[in-house]
Amino acid sequence: MSQPDPYGIRPGEVAVDVPEKFDAQLYFIGRIRTPWTHRDDCPKNASESDAVCTIEVDPRWATALTGIETCTHLLVLYWMHRARRDLVLQAPRHYSEPRGTFALRSPVRPNPVAASVVRLTGVEGTKLSVVGLDCLDGTPLIDLKPYFASTDAVPEAVVGWHADRRG
Amino acid sequence: MSQPDPYGIRPGEVAVDVPEKFDAQLYFIGRIRTPWTHRDDCPKNASESDAVCTIEVDPRWATALTGIETCTHLLVLYWMHRARRDLVLQAPRHYSEPRGTFALRSPVRPNPVAASVVRLTGVEGTKLSVVGLDCLDGTPLIDLKPYFASTDAVPEAVVGWHADRRG
Repeated sequence: MSQPDPYGIRPGEVAVDVPEKFDAQLYFIGRIRTPWTHRDDCPKNASESDAVCTIEVDPRWATALTGIETCTHLLVLYWMHRARRDLVLQAPRHYSEPRGTFALRSPVRPNPVAASVVRLTGVEGTKLSVVGLDCLDGTPLIDLKPYFASTDAVPEAVVGWHADRRG
Repeated sequence: MSQPDPYGIRPGEVAVDVPEKFDAQLYFIGRIRTPWTHRDDCPKNASESDAVCTIEVDPRWATALTGIETCTHLLVLYWMHRARRDLVLQAPRHYSEPRGTFALRSPVRPNPVAASVVRLTGVEGTKLSVVGLDCLDGTPLIDLKPYFASTDAVPEAVVGWHADRRG
């Protein structure tokens, strides 16, 4: 059964009442330019795509990019602005059973901040060329961080439910 | 020269006017319990500490933890609520020259969302025991994500300015 709203509720999913008020606020500090304008076009996983995307940082923050060109990889935080925020149990189409939101990388979460590791291939003024994103064109940028292998890389990490899944 | 405000401006640092309004809003979904109540007590780098910290998730989101116990590692997003947001060039005390905010992991940034990789050592109800945090006790929690080695681990990544630094 197809859902016209990609973030509609599916069988097995559970929503909760969100809090009455917010606690903190974010600035959009730029935009991400990608080849994908519809959600169905996006690669399901960034590692499936070699597409070079462009991160356009607002000129206000230009000086904050000083030294970033020395980084081979960045951690990019961005805002998944079209996602609902109240689901605690989710049944993504490509998995067999519902899972908790915090055990998933789904855009649907209380705070729809995505975190992606990208390879930095070029810097031109306030535009960064990167490989490793899978988001929609126009996605708002929240933060850029240098990726430190010493603390950020854990090659032996395992997501048990994913490793064991049947489909 | 000591600064009474730990986030005061130092020589070589540059601040900008922040935007007039915010663009998005966050819920605090829990709190992080750590042994550190003063900024000077915090380990400079999470890898320097084996301390077990506790992530207390708000009961509202309890169901969202379903399946998280199968993860060996998590990506934790939290809010560095005491930090100023307007610096674009920063001179941390332990580095020799000013660097751009987006080339640093400093809490001082337009959107003070920290991202830390932790090892999950236990789950009891809505309390998670983790190793790998270096934040203040009471830090607000923003998100928990499963850490996927396939996309999140890049052991060969290099932060050039850091690798080359003289002090």
